Amino acid sequence: MTSKIARFLREQAPPTPCLVVDLDRVAASYRALERALPLARIYYAVKANPAAEVLRTLVGLGSSFDAASEEEVMACLAVGAEPAKISYGNTIKKERSIRRAFEAGVRLFAFDSEEELEKLARAAPGAQVYCRILVENEGADWPLSRKFGCTVEMARDLMLKAAGMGLDPMGLSFHVGSQQTNTIAYEAAIAKVAMLFTDLTERGVNLRMLNLGGGFPARYRKPVPGIDTFGNAIHQALVKAFGNAIPEIVVEPGRFIVAEAGVLAAEVVLVSRKAKDDPVRWVYLDVGRFSGLAETEGEAIKYRITTPHDGKAKGPVAIAGPTCDSVDTMYEKSGYQLPQALKAGDQVLLHATGAYTTTYSSVGFNGFAPLKDYYV
Amino acid sequence: MTSKIARFLREQAPPTPCLVVDLDRVAASYRALERALPLARIYYAVKANPAAEVLRTLVGLGSSFDAASEEEVMACLAVGAEPAKISYGNTIKKERSIRRAFEAGVRLFAFDSEEELEKLARAAPGAQVYCRILVENEGADWPLSRKFGCTVEMARDLMLKAAGMGLDPMGLSFHVGSQQTNTIAYEAAIAKVAMLFTDLTERGVNLRMLNLGGGFPARYRKPVPGIDTFGNAIHQALVKAFGNAIPEIVVEPGRFIVAEAGVLAAEVVLVSRKAKDDPVRWVYLDVGRFSGLAETEGEAIKYRITTPHDGKAKGPVAIAGPTCDSVDTMYEKSGYQLPQALKAGDQVLLHATGAYTTTYSSVGFNGFAPLKDYYV
Repeated sequence: MTSKIARFLREQAPPTPCLVVDLDRVAASYRALERALPLARIYYAVKANPAAEVLRTLVGLGSSFDAASEEEVMACLAVGAEPAKISYGNTIKKERSIRRAFEAGVRLFAFDSEEELEKLARAAPGAQVYCRILVENEGADWPLSRKFGCTVEMARDLMLKAAGMGLDPMGLSFHVGSQQTNTIAYEAAIAKVAMLFTDLTERGVNLRMLNLGGGFPARYRKPVPGIDTFGNAIHQALVKAFGNAIPEIVVEPGRFIVAEAGVLAAEVVLVSRKAKDDPVRWVYLDVGRFSGLAETEGEAIKYRITTPHDGKAKGPVAIAGPTCDSVDTMYEKSGYQLPQALKAGDQVLLHATGAYTTTYSSVGFNGFAPLKDYYV
Repeated sequence: MTSKIARFLREQAPPTPCLVVDLDRVAASYRALERALPLARIYYAVKANPAAEVLRTLVGLGSSFDAASEEEVMACLAVGAEPAKISYGNTIKKERSIRRAFEAGVRLFAFDSEEELEKLARAAPGAQVYCRILVENEGADWPLSRKFGCTVEMARDLMLKAAGMGLDPMGLSFHVGSQQTNTIAYEAAIAKVAMLFTDLTERGVNLRMLNLGGGFPARYRKPVPGIDTFGNAIHQALVKAFGNAIPEIVVEPGRFIVAEAGVLAAEVVLVSRKAKDDPVRWVYLDVGRFSGLAETEGEAIKYRITTPHDGKAKGPVAIAGPTCDSVDTMYEKSGYQLPQALKAGDQVLLHATGAYTTTYSSVGFNGFAPLKDYYV
């Protein structure tokens, strides 16, 4: 936890649950990524945390932005981002949303299907478009399955069609899955997409950009490789694939930029056992899967938790949220241990919670208010 | 779909996604349950749909209310529910929330642990309390696991303790899991809890109430047994267990009351294939798991979907939401088929969506607004 966050929690004692984000830490992560990948333009994935304070900090650092919706495009423009620095990166867009983004000056759009290309040709004539390719997500804690991207063969067809439709097919993209802890995923994807890149270039398509997506991991319970490790592996894979003709490189980090900048303060509502001799205690917090911790689904993201009793004897726990829905259980199988002294009313801290928390909150499931957030 | 909903959608053409709920249908379900279980007092589970219009309709019908939080207690009071008709049914409550509900006149509280009983004794002295027992959830499409309830042995100890703490231990409860399609679950649970009921009564505890929880199913893709089937099975199980000394019976239906009263209108944003020869099309809607369809997690609740092309040739589809999160996929393995003619811009209807949709919506994941709802 940064000293700014500690001071804020101490001096303000805000009601829980709440998230406190240190904007200096956001800036530090941005700069670390810039240093690790000097070739790449950074498009911050707005969906990770779209707070105006975060966006404004990144505008100040010269960041570009990856928007998932018309609303996110407008949020970037509202804090002063130039339209030329915004990519509308969702492959699933209503035609009227494409039109509004185009009218607002956005010129870069993702696609992965014929129908989307037709919408782009109608609503964003002349725009730069890039096709998203399906790649393996092995090694990712939050894999992206088959929902996004198309096969290399289909991408080839669509990219060849795009120019004839009045669009500028300028790039290719992929995504190795979020919280990707293995550099091999990037190396394999770069090699795969580079073959198509070369193929299309030889067929006369004026390709200039390769978008490596996001996925760079944050540190949760376990250590992860540093960003330099990813930077080096990616650089080597690019040199291997493209020699001295490396195209413009784009990355779309979200989690890496904001996760570790945030700490979520929560209150223990209840500590109980299901039977007298049950070694496992159930610890119920005032935050859960429907008020910010959506990424604990399937126990995928395992947040580090600290308590006022750390250092004292610990025991196994299941950890759940405050609602009457049993799906609102964060951890039952991940081997969490918390102090035996923990009791209702204690404040606990969930670390590295700056990404994918606030906007996932439900509007009021079971009557509980959305997660409140502060930026310091 | 009811004629009132059809007319509203036709005449108002509201922007999608949106939910339209027919309040007459809410009232009809309430009355059907009253007829099927004449012995029971109905405590509507507010969390299923806490809209003021729904609560007001049920107040008018004489319903009682099961609240999951202080906020839900206040929502009931705000539309004119009497505090004596409100049960604070969540076993996980902050002490200050118990106190506020008690100060507002609520006298009935659930618990399943010693720590909760201590909180109740301090914050709601003299209140009526009931203990929730862990029972099997087999047969439920949305089972409730081990998050709630305690063993019979622990319940016995806690109920015996409660009187000495200045509380009125007046009942026992269980929950067979939501969307429970098997009457055996109720029969088995009643038999199990009745033994404890008798045991405690013999030990001098003045038990008067048995709370059967909710769980009564709505009709989604497949037919479910009618409410009379549940009513008969429950009545027989009660007679078998209690003879002519059946205690006051409480039920807490949520889904059964509101699900079938609602229709969700959505727009197809994109229809695509991952490869040219892939038989499966991906259909992306403007509503997804983070804007109301949370219960499609694990493909648990399978909504019936109708389109403008019904009757024409169909083919297999995966169905996903509009966000850049691949977890936002509703159906990939449930064998959904939709018309081949389906395309971007078409409006589709998801039926029986009146329960567990609106308040599950995220505040704005990926920038998308929460689900809008209308009551007609």
